[in-house]
Formats: sequence, structure tokens, C-alpha cells
Amino acid sequence: MSAQDIRYGDLSIGELHGSLSDPLLDTMNFLNEVTFRYPDAISFAPGRPYDGFFDVEQVFAYLHEYVDHLAAGGNSAGQIRDAIFQYGPTAGRIQDLIADSLRVDEDIDVPPESIVVTVGCQEAMFLVLRALIAGPDDALLVSSPCYVGMTGAARMLDIEPTAVEEREDGLSIADLEAAIEAERARGRRPRAFYVVPDHSNPTGTTMPEPTRHELLDLARRQDILILEDSPYRLLGPRPHLPTLKSLDRDRRVVHLGSFSKTAFPGARVGFAVADQLVTDAAGGAGPLAAELAKIKSMVTVNTSAVSQAVVAGMLLSCQGRVSELNAKTAEYYATAMRSTLRELERCFPADRREALGVRWNAPSGGFFLSMRVPFLAGNAALARSAEEFGVIWTPMSYFYPDGGGERALRLSVSYLSEDEITEGILRLARFIEAESAAETEL
Amino acid sequence: MSAQDIRYGDLSIGELHGSLSDPLLDTMNFLNEVTFRYPDAISFAPGRPYDGFFDVEQVFAYLHEYVDHLAAGGNSAGQIRDAIFQYGPTAGRIQDLIADSLRVDEDIDVPPESIVVTVGCQEAMFLVLRALIAGPDDALLVSSPCYVGMTGAARMLDIEPTAVEEREDGLSIADLEAAIEAERARGRRPRAFYVVPDHSNPTGTTMPEPTRHELLDLARRQDILILEDSPYRLLGPRPHLPTLKSLDRDRRVVHLGSFSKTAFPGARVGFAVADQLVTDAAGGAGPLAAELAKIKSMVTVNTSAVSQAVVAGMLLSCQGRVSELNAKTAEYYATAMRSTLRELERCFPADRREALGVRWNAPSGGFFLSMRVPFLAGNAALARSAEEFGVIWTPMSYFYPDGGGERALRLSVSYLSEDEITEGILRLARFIEAESAAETEL
Repeated sequence: MSAQDIRYGDLSIGELHGSLSDPLLDTMNFLNEVTFRYPDAISFAPGRPYDGFFDVEQVFAYLHEYVDHLAAGGNSAGQIRDAIFQYGPTAGRIQDLIADSLRVDEDIDVPPESIVVTVGCQEAMFLVLRALIAGPDDALLVSSPCYVGMTGAARMLDIEPTAVEEREDGLSIADLEAAIEAERARGRRPRAFYVVPDHSNPTGTTMPEPTRHELLDLARRQDILILEDSPYRLLGPRPHLPTLKSLDRDRRVVHLGSFSKTAFPGARVGFAVADQLVTDAAGGAGPLAAELAKIKSMVTVNTSAVSQAVVAGMLLSCQGRVSELNAKTAEYYATAMRSTLRELERCFPADRREALGVRWNAPSGGFFLSMRVPFLAGNAALARSAEEFGVIWTPMSYFYPDGGGERALRLSVSYLSEDEITEGILRLARFIEAESAAETEL
Repeated sequence: MSAQDIRYGDLSIGELHGSLSDPLLDTMNFLNEVTFRYPDAISFAPGRPYDGFFDVEQVFAYLHEYVDHLAAGGNSAGQIRDAIFQYGPTAGRIQDLIADSLRVDEDIDVPPESIVVTVGCQEAMFLVLRALIAGPDDALLVSSPCYVGMTGAARMLDIEPTAVEEREDGLSIADLEAAIEAERARGRRPRAFYVVPDHSNPTGTTMPEPTRHELLDLARRQDILILEDSPYRLLGPRPHLPTLKSLDRDRRVVHLGSFSKTAFPGARVGFAVADQLVTDAAGGAGPLAAELAKIKSMVTVNTSAVSQAVVAGMLLSCQGRVSELNAKTAEYYATAMRSTLRELERCFPADRREALGVRWNAPSGGFFLSMRVPFLAGNAALARSAEEFGVIWTPMSYFYPDGGGERALRLSVSYLSEDEITEGILRLARFIEAESAAETEL
């Protein structure tokens, strides 16, 4: 199609809702292009779950398991057909199984009515933001660098998040409190703080247990909600730290759940645990989850009944113990992470990384780790890295809502083999040495 | 849970984003409550597809069909696993099959890149509104009474649609043009007009072919887009009138597609055909569908790969001829509609309906017909109808964004048996007679 081909009905970017031509989306698009242009490069970019332990036949087995479960529960053939075929309740069909799983696997004890099933965790984020942020006077605070799904959902709703920048060792509760008070001093109402406490995307940081308690205290003291997003949690080694939700005694935490890393991404099933009570003008009260379902009815209506059935079968197959079902995959990721750290150590021994000003963190699990480098690690550097050194990574600056992270990058280890990690880190080291040398020459 | 149970972290409706406690949602909730409270009432309310021709085994068969198709196309086991298991392209995985189907079944000839696969038609509506309505100066016009999914999606984005009220015989192009010019006179930019041309929800009206041509002419003349939503189209008798999109020579029409009535609702797969060219600042051009996919990446990321696989299998099983696959179901609905009209005629012969001031339309297909009655047919009347007469219907006023329809109701015939229709219309007639008599006494 050429520009001359444009006729009536066609549009310019400027005519569309502004955020579409967003720098964030355009920048991420660049990463996709680089990946496409250099297919032989080793890529530490995608947060892609490993699928080597998955077989297509599992989909059929899970579906059968759920159908059998419905039959065993006394459902007629017609009722089973209804559960798979028809529009279902907007809040979902499998909240009981999710609640059971949260209880046995996560020590989160909530009634099924406080859960809404969503099209992946992304929709859960979207619904929560739509409900909680009523206008420009309501502030959403986010731990920064921040997962782009949250930043993106906020942009779709014309919400500008307030970034609370993490320190080298993670979130500082004092910094968060200062940011909340600054918002209040500006006349805004701080509503919620978004954080990924376990093996965070993008940094790989895990929040220590004492900080979790401090954060909950702060939420109570400052009257805000916490949006806890923890998709990588069960993909780390045990013992897992307690979720914020399991420590929550005052319904301060909205827990955003995902089966995209633990069951499979293609199902697109996530959920929100929102047990906060909402009172209406008549004094009646119901869970926030019911309000989220009302919004959902105008966004996607239902989460696919087929997808819910598959996830339900998965939950049934492990009696809700997703952590056990994922033990092998978690070990795979842990091995990949250890290998990556070992190869980084080999390529940059202590004196060498000191001399260069290179450092990285050592996450205990999950997909990601972050690296500081002594040069600008933006799109231009990424293009050189892919073309000249055959290695791809993600600029950390993508994840800073207010700017920052220009000299840092994210490495994802989830989808690479041992050999790819060894070769990829070697290439990365060559790239870093070359860029550092060029920087020194300037 | 009692109000006293409310602790920190809990909320009042007033604290949430206003539209949540929306009269529309609350009113529709009333209908659900009535349905729940009177399970023995015959309900003409739900727009529920008939599932008697569906069998759960079809899900397995469709999935196998798609897997076999991928294998026959030269995909490796790993690639097939990827297609089912992994995150896929945001715009979808099965646009080629949808494009083929639109070509053979609907005479719509568009490239796959102009299609974005969505979580039901509802998400397609949401994405299109988010893209096209950039701010309060952009006007969305809707045919009124209007499908609540569109009104609801608009509310979620704080868009106030401008209602163009239909006349007794349907949409008047002159009325629409006057509304467009009134918006322009107010300094607003009319962007798009939403309409359900075939067997409309809620009225059952079908737009005559000459009006379709007039509407396209108007769109060109007034420089607006048409949002065509036609889920009931293939559920009417043949020959079907041409879709607006098939008549569109200037890319004036965004076609919103659904498989919820033709494949099955539980899959939650819909799509938008958006072949409008969007030019960026650099002079590059791409289809509007690609911009919609960008928004989708921040709302639901992907449409379930499992659901897409099931729908793909369905499309493959009929070589894209969904109309043929649905021939039996369409006949079922047509029979139900004929029976309903016959029973109405029997209960209200010409002189009786004249005397009462009752009348209804006679749709050729689809799920719905609309009735005018000589009394207020709101929630209070609905409660009496359910409790005293054992029959449920939908107040037409639910579907008027700006008020209206107070003395009209919607009947849905899609899910009832012959006997239920006969008995249900008898009960409805008794209710109407009683309400009319009460009205006369006042």
C-alpha cells in the first residue's frame, strides 16, 4: 500500500487517540524489528516461558479432566455443554478451583466471590486501574523500573503513573512514603501502589520479607491499596517468600494472578483477588471483584470458557498445587539463571568488572536479571549488539515511565539452552568490552 | 459480610470510577435478579444462542482439525506446540482463515493484515472506540435504541455517544445526517456511526439494501467511518443482504465480527476488519488493524490461542462457509420467530391490537423482535410480569442512551421451544391485557 493509495476513510496517526503513537510502543516495536532482522542472534530479550515440557496432548487431557470433574459433581450432559459452549458468568466459572489452589499453594484464604477471572493478568490490571483511578486527581504509584503491561494499561486509560524509583537493592519504603506524601501535598489522592515482589520484571529483584511487612504497614498508615503482581513467583526455588496477599490482614492488597507462566500463555487466563468491600449508597456491600466484573462485561464480557476449562483441568490434575506442577520448569529456569551468572562471572571477573564499571544482580529465580553498563544502552547500542556481535537484550530504559535506566539492560534467561547461554554471554561480553572501549575513547 | 465488617482498604462506590455505579449496569442487574427469583417463568429476555446442535466433542474435533491443518502446512511438532502453547502475535494467529471465510461467505475481500482477532466482538468495539475517539471533541454517533455492549464500551472510556433515534421502520439517513451536522455545528468532529444492520439487537430491524447504499454515500459525503456490527446476520434466512463492508469502495466501514453466535459463545473469539490506512508522521502507512493491535497489547495482550485454534478448526471444517455450517441453527431460529409471530397474531388479532394500541415488527430472522405496548414497560412492570404472569422480557428503555423506549419491550426467541413460545406468548398476552386495563382505569 502506498501513500497515494489513501482514499476517503483513511486516517493519520495524529487523528487517532494520542497514546497510540506512544514512544513506549514504538520503542518496543524496535526490539521486535531487531529480533526479526537478526534471526541468528542469541536473544536474551523475550520473557518467553520455556515450552519444552509442554505437549499439545495436555490440552485435550486437561479438557477431559474438567469435563469429568463436572460430571462427577453431578452435572448433566446439558450442564456440561453449557459450561463449555455458552456465555458464562462475567466473573468466571472456575473461581472455586482458583480459591482452592490459592489456599493450598499460597496460603491465601479468600472466598471465590472475591475472585474475577480475566483474559490474562493484563486484563486484571486494566480492570483494577479503571475501577480505582476515578480521574486526574487520583494517583497511581508504581515501582520503577516498571513492567510495561502496567504502564501500558495506564496509558490506555490516560492515567499517568507516578514512578517511585528503586534503589540498587530494591524498593525503599521511605521513598514510597515520601512519594505518597508529595502526591497528597499536590492535592492528589494516592490510591494504589503497583509492585512485582517476586523475581520482578524487569530487574529480577525479590522483595525481602521484612520489607513486605513494612509495605503493608505503610499501606494501612497511608490509606492506599497495593496491587501485587507476581507471575514469576512459583518459578523460583523454594521456600517461596509469602505473598503480600497472604500477609494481608486488612484487605489492603489486590492480588493480580496469572496462569501464563505456570499453566500456559496460550490459554490467556489470569485473575484478580479483590476482596475489598465496596459499599453502595444504600449501605449494601459486596466485594471489589464484583465491580471489576461489571467493567469486564464492557471490555471482554467473559474469559473464554474453553480456556477456563483447560486451566481448570490443569488445577485439578495437581489438586491445586501449581507449585508442584511447575517444579520441573522452575528447576529449568533456576539452572539457566545459575549458568548465566556463572558465565557472567567467567567473562567479567571481579577486577575486570570493577575496572569497567559493570555489575549485575543475582536473582534466585524467575526469568530476568539486570546489568549496569558504563555506556548508553539504548536502541542504537542494541542495533550494534545484534548486528556486530550477534546478541540481543532489552534496554532497561524501556521500563522507566519517567526516564532513567539509560545505562542498564535486562537479560531474560527463560528460553535459552546451556550452549546458547554460554555463547550468548561470551558475545555479550565482547559487545560490552567494545562499547566500553569506545566510550573511553570519546 | 456486613457493613460493620468494613476495615481499612475498603471502599465506597463513590470512590470508584463513576461509571461503575452506572444506571445501565444496575438496571440490567435487575433483569438478572428477576430471572433468578422466578426460575419457572418463561423468559424472552436472554440473547442466548441455541446450543441443542452443539456437542462438547466438537471442541476436540475442531482442535484436532486445526492441529492437522498446521501439520499439513509443513509445521513441525515444535511449531504446532508453539501455536497452541505460547503467546502469539497480538493481532492473532488465524487472520488468514478469517479472510478466506469472509471472501467465500461474505464477499468481503480484505488482506489478513487488515484483521485483528479479539476477545469476542466486545473487545473489537472497545479497541475501535479507544482508537477513533481521541477526546471530548470527537463524536460517536449510534443508532438508537443501541446494543448495550457499544454503549457500555463507550462508558468505560468516558465517551458519551450521540443517539440517532430510529423511526418505526428503521434508521433514517436524513436524521443521521442532521445529527452529524448538529455535532459539527457544536464544534465537534463526528468520527464514526455504529449500527447493527441485520436483525438488530434490540429491535430486530434489518436495514434495506437501498439504505445501505445511502449510508455509504453519506459516510463519504460527511467524512465519517461506519462501525458495522452484524452478529445475527448469518442466522437469518437466505438470501442475506450484502454487508456494508462488502459494498464499501472507500474503506469507510470497520466491520466488527463475531463467532459467538455462529461457532460458539464460549470461545470468545471475534475480530475487527479495519483496512483503513493510517499514515504516520514519517509518511509510512499501515492498516488501522495494526493500531488496534497496539491497543490490544495493553488490554488483553492476545486472544486465547486455544480458542483461536477451536475457531480455526470450525472454519476449516466448513471451508470457511460459516453460513452453511449454521444453516440448521438459522432454520431453528427462523422457525422460533415464525411461531412467535403466529402466537402473537393469535393472541392479538388485528382489531384487538388496534383497540389496545399494541404492535410489533416481523423480523425475517435473528433473535429479537420489538413490541410497543400502551403502558410503561419498565422494571416495575417486569417484576409484575414475572411474579403474577410467569413471563420475562427486556424493557426496551435499557437500550436508549438518552432516554426513550419506555412503552416498548424486546422479545428474544432464540432459546425457547415451541411449547415454551406458545405458553409464553399466552402469558405475555394476559400480562399485556391486565396492564392495559389497569392503565385505562387510571
